Amino acid sequence: MRLALFDNGRLGLVDGDALVDVTDQLAGAGTAGPAGALQHYIETTTAGEQVRFSLAGRPRISLTEAALRAPLPRPGKIVGAPVNYLDHKAEMAYTTSVAELGVFLKANSSVIGPGEDIVLPYADRRTDQEGELGVVIGRTASHVSADDALDHVFGYTCVLDITVRSGEDRSTRKSFDTFTPIGPWIVTADEIPDPDALDLRCDVGGTTRQRTSTADLIFGVRELVSYASSVMTLHPGDVIATGTPAGVGPLTHGDRVVLEIERIGRLEVGVDGSRATPYARRPGRRAPARG
Amino acid sequence: MRLALFDNGRLGLVDGDALVDVTDQLAGAGTAGPAGALQHYIETTTAGEQVRFSLAGRPRISLTEAALRAPLPRPGKIVGAPVNYLDHKAEMAYTTSVAELGVFLKANSSVIGPGEDIVLPYADRRTDQEGELGVVIGRTASHVSADDALDHVFGYTCVLDITVRSGEDRSTRKSFDTFTPIGPWIVTADEIPDPDALDLRCDVGGTTRQRTSTADLIFGVRELVSYASSVMTLHPGDVIATGTPAGVGPLTHGDRVVLEIERIGRLEVGVDGSRATPYARRPGRRAPARG
Repeated sequence: MRLALFDNGRLGLVDGDALVDVTDQLAGAGTAGPAGALQHYIETTTAGEQVRFSLAGRPRISLTEAALRAPLPRPGKIVGAPVNYLDHKAEMAYTTSVAELGVFLKANSSVIGPGEDIVLPYADRRTDQEGELGVVIGRTASHVSADDALDHVFGYTCVLDITVRSGEDRSTRKSFDTFTPIGPWIVTADEIPDPDALDLRCDVGGTTRQRTSTADLIFGVRELVSYASSVMTLHPGDVIATGTPAGVGPLTHGDRVVLEIERIGRLEVGVDGSRATPYARRPGRRAPARG
Repeated sequence: MRLALFDNGRLGLVDGDALVDVTDQLAGAGTAGPAGALQHYIETTTAGEQVRFSLAGRPRISLTEAALRAPLPRPGKIVGAPVNYLDHKAEMAYTTSVAELGVFLKANSSVIGPGEDIVLPYADRRTDQEGELGVVIGRTASHVSADDALDHVFGYTCVLDITVRSGEDRSTRKSFDTFTPIGPWIVTADEIPDPDALDLRCDVGGTTRQRTSTADLIFGVRELVSYASSVMTLHPGDVIATGTPAGVGPLTHGDRVVLEIERIGRLEVGVDGSRATPYARRPGRRAPARG
């Protein structure tokens, strides 16, 4: 299944080139709060089987006309893999990878959906795109083995891990509002038996910057879920950004960023640099004297 | 007010040396889910005035007998200040502070409450205590000034930011399950007009390791909330750990850790080292070949 949020948080199932509204078939989905109806679905179906949605006789909306939202507007956690492709390690001249660095966290307030804009915070610091395969946890995972890891995965999505190149902690550089575009929907795990063999391409301003296969991940999806779960309990709806290949680069005002992953879909967002301010003027840089 | 969670997630108001159960006076508090009744209270009261709880005729439980829980078992975000006291900067020989490093994030799955145990993950790596003033956000904060910052604070609590000393990203080293003891309750902001003048003391195994005043914070509470809100939107119930003074040190099995902050309270937890494993044997260290 391909599950999406649209309009004012309604739950839709993608059927061919149409979206079918299935909100009413899921108890409690209409009042799911900021976490959204799809989070609610993931939480309420993990213990048993997936709900079988009925599509017969339901209104169909053309996908090209549907206003898709981020499928998980505020995940419980967003876990990232810092250096998980050798070619990205090389281009950044990093000396360590995920095996030494572990994982980082992004703020769950940084999520946007298809068609929204990444907002550049600083006028004089690079803000880069990083296209990545996103893993959505379906069943609570704590100290799971790599062999068992995929049993804890609900599905997959496209994730852009937007990143400022500056001296701050990764959590700061990657957590500005709008820095985690997710979507366009979540594809359930049954449709992707091997997440470590997917082609990924990321275009910025019409030029292809990143092209890889997830076969080149240093920690594949199984190892990454296993490792992350050895540090922190992963809960249903948590998102893991699996890391980015070579080809990261600066975004500028007006860019369109397109991330396409085989069997999953195509996520497109814009870039808004109109509100960027000088890095040296950020708050706290000169803390005011306290009374 | 001092607001606590106790028993199976009930909401209590501390009145002298007793806890009064006020769960039934808050609509929806009984079914608040993993985020808990106090999170629900903070979310539903931010727009207007605090609920005035009625204590007359309600059953009273002695505080010494009440089973207190973490007041916020799963906050939306836990934001930390990496180096926010000069004496801690000096003891760690750090060359930068919060002004250069920004903030980091801890997993919201790492929270425990009073009386629970910090679980040490690695037998051959230091895991340190870091006693800190915790700030609980009450009203959504985005790009707020230092002058306006306290208008967005719901209250204060004690936070232990437990940290492994190893080479991973801060989010990993600080996010193991049990690594964020919070409590024993939240004191509402009206009782603490100046959060930058509170004495803090942290004892481990009966010995005082840390003693400071929050007057020595590099970024005071106002500047820290302002800065963090310039990066990421802060939502009601988000927790900010304001940073730790000098005196961090290793925890060992059986230790009792006591953090006491003036006007707020005393948080005590234990240390369980019985499940610690060798660092070199952590998952993914040698990723298995993929089929």
